[in-house]
Parts: sequence; C-alpha cells; structure tokens
Amino acid sequence: MPIDIKHPVPADIDIAHAAELLPIKEVAKKLGLKEDELEQYGKYKAKVKLEVLDRLEDVPNGKYIDVTAITPTPLGEGKTVTTIGLSQGLHHIGEKVFTCIRQPSQGPTFGIKGGAAGGGFSQVVPMEDFNLHLTGDIHAVGAAHNQLAAAIDNRMMKERQWSTDFLAKMLCPDDEYTDSMRKRLEKLDIESEKPSDLSDEDKGRMFRLNIDPYSIQWNRVVDVSDKALRKIIVGLGGQGNADPRETGYDITVASEIMAALGMTTGLADLRERMGRIIIGTSKTGGQPHVQRPVLPITAEDLNVAGAMTVLLKDAIKPNMMQTLVGSPAFVHTGPFANIAQGNSSIIADKIALKLVGPEGYVVTESGFGADCGMEKFMNLKSRVSGLTPNCVVMVATVRALKMHGGGPRVVPGKVLDKAYTEENLELLEKGLPNLIQHIENARKFGVPVVVAVNRFTSDTDKEMEMIKEAALKAGASDSVISDVWANGGAGGADLARAVVKAIEEEENDFHFLYEDDMSIKEKIETVAKEIYRADDVDYSDEAERKIKQFTEMGLSDLPLCMAKTHLSFSHDPKLKGVPKGWTLPIREVRASVGAGFIFPVCGPISTMPGLPTRPAFTEIDIDVDTGEVLGLS
Amino acid sequence: MPIDIKHPVPADIDIAHAAELLPIKEVAKKLGLKEDELEQYGKYKAKVKLEVLDRLEDVPNGKYIDVTAITPTPLGEGKTVTTIGLSQGLHHIGEKVFTCIRQPSQGPTFGIKGGAAGGGFSQVVPMEDFNLHLTGDIHAVGAAHNQLAAAIDNRMMKERQWSTDFLAKMLCPDDEYTDSMRKRLEKLDIESEKPSDLSDEDKGRMFRLNIDPYSIQWNRVVDVSDKALRKIIVGLGGQGNADPRETGYDITVASEIMAALGMTTGLADLRERMGRIIIGTSKTGGQPHVQRPVLPITAEDLNVAGAMTVLLKDAIKPNMMQTLVGSPAFVHTGPFANIAQGNSSIIADKIALKLVGPEGYVVTESGFGADCGMEKFMNLKSRVSGLTPNCVVMVATVRALKMHGGGPRVVPGKVLDKAYTEENLELLEKGLPNLIQHIENARKFGVPVVVAVNRFTSDTDKEMEMIKEAALKAGASDSVISDVWANGGAGGADLARAVVKAIEEEENDFHFLYEDDMSIKEKIETVAKEIYRADDVDYSDEAERKIKQFTEMGLSDLPLCMAKTHLSFSHDPKLKGVPKGWTLPIREVRASVGAGFIFPVCGPISTMPGLPTRPAFTEIDIDVDTGEVLGLS
Repeated sequence: MPIDIKHPVPADIDIAHAAELLPIKEVAKKLGLKEDELEQYGKYKAKVKLEVLDRLEDVPNGKYIDVTAITPTPLGEGKTVTTIGLSQGLHHIGEKVFTCIRQPSQGPTFGIKGGAAGGGFSQVVPMEDFNLHLTGDIHAVGAAHNQLAAAIDNRMMKERQWSTDFLAKMLCPDDEYTDSMRKRLEKLDIESEKPSDLSDEDKGRMFRLNIDPYSIQWNRVVDVSDKALRKIIVGLGGQGNADPRETGYDITVASEIMAALGMTTGLADLRERMGRIIIGTSKTGGQPHVQRPVLPITAEDLNVAGAMTVLLKDAIKPNMMQTLVGSPAFVHTGPFANIAQGNSSIIADKIALKLVGPEGYVVTESGFGADCGMEKFMNLKSRVSGLTPNCVVMVATVRALKMHGGGPRVVPGKVLDKAYTEENLELLEKGLPNLIQHIENARKFGVPVVVAVNRFTSDTDKEMEMIKEAALKAGASDSVISDVWANGGAGGADLARAVVKAIEEEENDFHFLYEDDMSIKEKIETVAKEIYRADDVDYSDEAERKIKQFTEMGLSDLPLCMAKTHLSFSHDPKLKGVPKGWTLPIREVRASVGAGFIFPVCGPISTMPGLPTRPAFTEIDIDVDTGEVLGLS
Repeated sequence: MPIDIKHPVPADIDIAHAAELLPIKEVAKKLGLKEDELEQYGKYKAKVKLEVLDRLEDVPNGKYIDVTAITPTPLGEGKTVTTIGLSQGLHHIGEKVFTCIRQPSQGPTFGIKGGAAGGGFSQVVPMEDFNLHLTGDIHAVGAAHNQLAAAIDNRMMKERQWSTDFLAKMLCPDDEYTDSMRKRLEKLDIESEKPSDLSDEDKGRMFRLNIDPYSIQWNRVVDVSDKALRKIIVGLGGQGNADPRETGYDITVASEIMAALGMTTGLADLRERMGRIIIGTSKTGGQPHVQRPVLPITAEDLNVAGAMTVLLKDAIKPNMMQTLVGSPAFVHTGPFANIAQGNSSIIADKIALKLVGPEGYVVTESGFGADCGMEKFMNLKSRVSGLTPNCVVMVATVRALKMHGGGPRVVPGKVLDKAYTEENLELLEKGLPNLIQHIENARKFGVPVVVAVNRFTSDTDKEMEMIKEAALKAGASDSVISDVWANGGAGGADLARAVVKAIEEEENDFHFLYEDDMSIKEKIETVAKEIYRADDVDYSDEAERKIKQFTEMGLSDLPLCMAKTHLSFSHDPKLKGVPKGWTLPIREVRASVGAGFIFPVCGPISTMPGLPTRPAFTEIDIDVDTGEVLGLS
C-alpha cells in the first residue's frame, strides 16, 4: 500500500481517504491466518476467531512493546500516533509487526476530542470505521451492561410485589432450577433438588435477593457524552414501572464489562467474569424474623450472566484493521484509563504475538502517562495475561517537559506561550526530572526503555540533545527523535531500530512490583511509594471500611487498578514535575470483581464526559453523493 | 441447503443449528450480485450496497407480496412463520424469491417474547445473529437518537449559561457559519455572510434556539426492556450537569429514526429526514423585550443532523441472510407497529424486487393485523416507495376466529380452553366476519387476496372448509392451508401456488384510500370508516389543537400512521369480531416529520416494554466450549 508523503501534512481524514487500502483478507493471508479464522466485516475490517490461539499454541511469542508517555499536558503528547508510527517504522525496516490499540468511545469523537486513529501519516484505517461503530463491540458491551441494570430494577420490583411462594413459582414454573440458580444454592450452602423441596426459610434465602437499593453500584451506560445523565432518578410514573431511586449513567467504555472484556483470556473465562460481577449487596434485614448477613449480589444471582455473555460472544474476538502502510492492527476493547486498566485487550495481544512469531513485534499502547497506564500494563494486565513485556517506549515532548519545568499553563484551544515555541534550555532542564522518574519507574519492572521524542517543528537540536543525555543517564537504552506524524514509517525508522537494538542487547528481567498475597494496603503503598514517590498514604474512613470488607470477602488477592489523575505523579493535577514530600489520599476503594481488580480512588473521577458549546459533531456531515464522511478529525 | 424435516418438530434453535447454511456470498452470487456490492459480516450475513439500485435501474420489478393477518389473539397467529414459509414454498415450486422482514428488538428477545426469526421448519438463519445484534443497525439508530438527545440538553444548558455574544463566539469561533447554520438562517429569513454581520436581535434569533423544555418530545432510547426508564428525571447533581427535567426512555425500535430509516429511499433522503426531525418548539417569549413566534426546533437547528446521518451510513444498507432452504432474506429496520409503520424497509424491498427480476417474488410482512400493518403498508409505505403490491396474503387461524366468535379469553401462558382444541363450527362461524372484513378491506386497495390458514393439529377438515367458503365469498382469490411450521417449504407449496395463480389471473388495480391533499381529519376519517368501520371520529381538544398547528406548519400533506391497538378493529382491545356502532376517539395527534407521517393516537401506547418475573434471559446461556447459544427460542 503506497502512501505519498506530502508537506504540509494534509488533514487526517484526507490522508486516510487518499490511502490505498489492502483488502483485509490479504492482510490476514500474509499473517498466515486461515480463511475460516477470519470473519469479515466489510472489505477492510475483520474479526479473528479465538481458535487461532489453539492452532498456534506451540509458536513462540513475538517481542512485546508497550508505548507509554511522561506526564502529559492536557493536549496529549502523541502516544497513539507514536504507537502506530513505531509500527510503521518497524514495517519500514523490514520487521514483521502487529499494532494493538484501544477502540475509542464515540462520545468524545462527537464531543470534545474528535477521532483517535492516530494522525498525520501514522494512522489506522479506515479512520471512519475506527472512530465510529467499528464492528459494534462497544454497543455489545452497552447491551450487556444495560440488560443487567434492567434485571436489577425488575427483580427489586417483583420481590416487592410477590409473596415468596409466588416468586418461587414464577421463577421456577416447572419446579426446576437453572444452572445459575444451582450456583446460588451452592453459594448459600443449601442442598436442594427442586424448589418445592425448600423449607420456607431457605425459599426466602434462595429467591429473595433482597437487594439494598442504596448499595447498588451498577449504573447504566451509553456511548454518548451526555452530562444530563450523570445523576438521574428512574422508576417514576407509578406502580406499573419499577421503584423510584437515584442512579446515573456512565459512558460505555467506563463499564466494568469493558474492563472484563479487555482482561479476559477466553469465552469460559468471560462467562465466569460476568457471573462474578457484584452489583451491590443485600439488605441487613430480610423477611420478618430473619436476620441475614450482608451478601454481595452478583449477575449470576440475577440469572443474567449467561445472556450477558451471549451478547458479548462476538465482541470477544479482536478486530483487525491496518495501518497506512498495510501492516496489521488489532483494535480491541477500550477500557477507561483510571477506573479501569486503560489498555487494549489481552486476547488481541496474545493472538498478535503468535501471529508475528518469535522474530516479530507487537506494539501496544497504555493509556495516560507511565505512572498510570504503564504501571497497570505491568502490574495488572501482564499479571493476568502471563505475557512478558520486552521493551517500554517512553514518549516525551519538549512542550510537556517545559511545562514540568515551570512553564506557563497549557490550555486546550489557547495559543501556546512562546516559552514552548522557542528554544528554552533552562526551562527544559528543570522539567527533565519528570522524564527521569518515569524512566526509573519503567526500569523497576526490569524492562529496557527507549525514549521517543515526538518532535515539533519549533524544537531545536540542542533541546533534543539535552533530553537524550538525561534519558541515557537515567537508564534508558536510547533516546530517539520520532517524526512519524509528518513522515509516517520513514519518520519512525530510527525509533524502530533503537527498539530492536534495546530488545536484542539489553537484559530483560521482567517482574511485578507487588505479589498477589500482599495485603490491599501493602499493594497500594508499593505503587504510591515506588511509582508516584509519595511519602505516605492516607486512608479515609470509607476506604478503611471497604478494605476490611473486601479482605473479609476474600478479594485481597486481586491486583490493583489505581484511579488517579494522569496530569501529575500525585493526586493533584496542578502539581507538575516530580512532586516531593506529599501524602497520597485514598478516598474510597471499590472492587470490579468481574474485571478482576480492586480500584482505590485517589481523587474525583468523571465517568461521563460532557459536551462543549460547539461539539465536534457540529462539523461532521456526510457527502450524500459519495457517502464520504466529512469533518471527522 | 438440505434440511431434514423431522416429526415431532424439534426446538427452533436445534433446527437452526442442524441446517447446513450456504456462505452468504454464494447466496449473493446466485442473485447476480457483484462482489463489490456486498459487505460481508462474517460468513452468513452481508450488507448490500445501495449502488446496486443504479446498476439494476432498468430491470423490471418482481411481484410484491404483503403478508398480513386477521385480528390476532395475544399469542399471535404465525405471520412471520407464514412469511418465511411462503418464501420457502415459492422456492420449493421453483420460483425465484426474496423475503424482506423486520429486525426484532433485543428487548423482547431477552424479555417476554423470545426470538422472532420464524419458527419450526420456516426460519431465517443463523437465528442467533437474527435475534442478537445482527450487523448493529439498531445500535446505530440508538447512537444517532441519543446523540440528538444529548445535543438538546447541552444546548439548553449552554444557552442558559452564556450571553448571546459569547454563545455566538463559541458556536462560530472562526466567524463562519456551517452548512447547518446557513439552513437555519434561511428558515429565519436572515441574510448574513458571517456571524459578526448580525444585528443583536438577529444574533439572538439565530443562536438562541430558546427551546421550551416542556415541549420536548424527544426521549432517549435503549434496546433493552427496562420499565424503570419509562419516566425519569435527568440533569440532577448540580450546575456542572445539564438542567433538571422530566423525560423518559423508549425502546430503540420506537425511535423516529428507526421509522425514518425504514421509510428512506437513499442517503440524500435520509440526510434530509434527519434534518427535518422536530424535537420540540421554542418558548413563546425570548430575550427581554423580544416576542417571538413559537418555532419548531429541528435536529438541523442543533447542527447534529449530519453527524446522525454519519452514524447511520451503514445501517441504511439492508442485511442479507437466508431461509432454511437457502433462499435470500433481507432483515432490515424494525419500526414499531403502532407509533410507526411496522413494516421492514423500503430500501430492502426495492433492492429485492430488482434482484429477483420480473419473474421473481418478494415476500414481505407488515406488523399487527391487516387494519394496522397492511393499511400502513398500502397507504403509507407504498405511497413513499412508489411500489405496487401484487398480492395480499391474509393469515388466519381457527383459534383466532373462534375467539372473535365469542370463545373464552386467550391468555399467554395459560392452557387453551377446549373450545379451541376441539371442532366447534358454530363458534368458528360466528368469528368469520373478522376475516371477511379484513378481506374486504384488502380488496378496497385493488389487490388480490389469498387467505393462508395456519393450521394447528387439532383443527378439522370441516373447519378448513368453512373458512375457505367464507373467504372466497368475501372476495379472496383462494384460501389455502399452510403447514410451514411443521413442513417448511413443502408445507407452503400450496400457498405459493395459490399466490402465483392469484397474481397471474386476478386484476390488479392498486390505489390508495386517501390522497395527499386531503385534510388531516379527512384522512383520519377515511381510515376510521373504511378500514376500522367506525361510525364516527371524536377528537380531544388536544388533538384539535395539534391538527390546527400541524396544518398551519404545512404538514397536512403528510400521510397518516394510525396508533391503534391491534387486538381489535376498534380502539378497545376487548371488542373482538367486527365491532359495530362505535366512535373512534383521537386522543392526541403527533408528527414524526423525519419519518414523514402524522400519527393520530387512539389509545394508550407503551413504547417501553417491561420484564416479567422470569425474563427470557433466565434460560439463555452459552456453551463455553463450542460457543453455541443455548436457550434462545
């Protein structure tokens, strides 16, 4: 697929439309995929069946590269474009390469952010498909999520309406248990062959979930930026509807199901994850005269986990697309980067590593800065996948480093101060500790680090040199200028060579920073001190209570997924550079048992974006003659 | 594709799984579709591009058959199974045939109803794909719908927050209008090249939509049966969110966008329909000292109609699947059958009629009984499509006719009274007028009618004979026993032959029952008296007000889409048979300008189903080893 590099660089969508794409079945064929392992979605997208993992079981994995970044400005430092550009660079120097990235939410695409398929001459194409429905996976997550939400309100209403006997009869009209119901019997330690066997008390325990409406942590979701839905009251309109209660909506990519889909290793595992999802707890009371312990209520208890998995049976298969140079890309799952892992799926990485084989490379990206996304890539995602990262690519910009050195505030939509557009070695030098600390952190996991400086036209050679010197001193294998936005694969060739060299020559001693059997607090403190460099950790009463509760529930073996701002090493987005002498507050601790992690919350998190006054949709339209999408960027 | 007929008839899903499907590209090839006109979605589904209509412009259309039914019991009388079975029957006797049916909502699939892919040996397959996401069209409708909803609340909030000048600056940061904005300028009769040209007053008129929150008729949608969402309050949580107001959710298939997608004739037409959608009106007042007329507020005014069309760019293409005998089927759009047309898409019918050519047949189905779905098929859908129906197939059952004759109540889930399972000629005879009136109604459109008796095992030959006699006398071309559930294509061969004969031998004088230029009331009265056989029509004050308003807005040329119960010819579901001496109440009148119709409402309508105590999802699960869906029916 030849792509003509032009200067000045045209708009993303024009570059994407000018590209001559390969039919996806040809991309697949080059990888040795069999025709039956591919499910085409139009000419340029395909799902890959999980069966390929069985066929390639004995093929050694390729090299596994995680692209991350220093603490970014609010403008972002070009991590996705570097991820795709490094892949195109590896392709350019003749290496076999697969790119694995997240699918973006449609909310920001039509809202404040625009598309996320890379940019300039480093893109995944077709960019409309990438940014719009793709193959419908996010919609499938939403469908499964909202089916569970409807099941919760419906069950509470029916339990209020019916006597226990009638409820049991309606749930089991043929006096038979379903498999889901047998799992609940087991959990409650009740032995019973059929519902009519049950004592009155056991019937109550079995069929009355007795959900505490104030315990429900399962919102509804929609893949639209819609702030009006953040806090809502449902169940109005009288007794034919469900019971009124306060709840809210998150954007679909913040769903625990999205996180679980990204973490899952296969269909059986996904089915179990769906069953394990905790939506809230039972009330302390119960039927008159019966005092019961507070029990977690799961999707399995609601008999809906099977149907949820059915809704996800295609979404579990990774979506194959291509970069502008025709190299393969998986675009699969898009979990949030704070309340979830912020990394693309384990399944996509696993398949890609087999498909490229031992001589090939898989380039993936983790969300936010390295203290957030990379830490989760290492401690969380790689723990579950069992895969070994071979190299970290740390994206840095002169702009972000100067900000960390004390430069003026960087605000989206405002013109950059000249401190950022003229050489300023002093400011840059003051900002370098942020890069250094991120490099040190990555090295703590035992993996080589290559710094990729995403160079802007106003950056000077001296600035480049200064970054390189500091990076090497901090333990990086190399520091290379990346010019992939303007020059595509050719602009990423130096970076590609540096990565290949680092993997070949440096020692790899990959290991986690904490072990499964450490307590929740020990894990939190490890990340806080080793990665964020906090002096101490301070727990709110609520956090203490939850840590105790989760530990009692046997959840303390789960890894962590820290929910922290990405705009600072600390919990305070205003603290740039390398904050010293501070304490990390843990305001609350939550569990996503379906996704398989505990997430301590260090500050306010928004799980539903809003729209600006002029949303991105204002510019988006369609050419009704050609069907071409206009204004998507 | 050979399918072994077995008795007793196995479960639907087992029949579907036992079938040997053709790769969809082979089904397409047989129809003469070119490879580039097909977008595969896996091996057994494909979207067909609209360009095929240009290529086949000069090919005469095939014969066009609408399958409808007498007034049904709450159990349904087998219209979909007859539609598919008739198609398989036509295939069986060697005719070229295409089936065009609606895509079902996932809400009822997981709720109260189960799947809708036909049944027994007359199904569209793969039935899981049919009943689950298919190719994501319903999700796309939901995304477009909810994007518009978010735009409404966002705009109201921003208009409250900002001064007119600031609002104008935020909406047009480069002092330039978008195409959408120019349309609003035109509507407001303001001449202006750029925003800075505008007088203060015109700036206010242009940029302050001034939406009356109490006028908003645009709910949000989700494809889940979730009664807790029927009535909700959004915008809680403080001033960072949108303004609190009462609103609600409909199921996605009730979206006006679904109706518009079903009615559209192409991409340019769809873009216009999206722009025309009216979400509410402006307030009577306005800025201080400025009195303005109440204006309809459209999606175009909100600058979001282009983005909505972009979200629907794939959903507009019909989805090809196959029947159990390998004949082609389009499954495309699923608009509600009361507040919308309840018919599958015009685009699918148009493409199918070209693909089968003048010697072939297209079998489609219209929702509910003939007084609802068929009336809309004729007066509404065929008016917009310009297509000429060649035959009506009227599905009847002995069970429903006996109910109309005064038989005991038929209740889902309860055992049928023996009046229905033993021969009872007296009861049957008393019920025949319902069939007769439906036949007469169909004949009023000038189209031949064939009655298809969906025979149950307990029905007797004498009962069949009695139905046939009455049908012929009422003007039907024939009355044939349909045995398609138990015997597939062979069981539909007699019906197929009767339909072929009726089309060949009977005169076709197709015409509408009312003309475009009749007043809204004249149109309502035509349908009420000619089809429902009401003596008169009674309008509520609200209905009178709306008729006046819509007429003043120039909407009276639109055709009607009557929102009436399907369980009676009248507005009262309890009145069976052929109600006499009654008046049709019109409680309110609404307009779906994007879909292109006025809908008078004759009684309560639910646009969001609920879940029963044991929802259908209780039985649905996945075999984690094979990936097979279990329990879907």
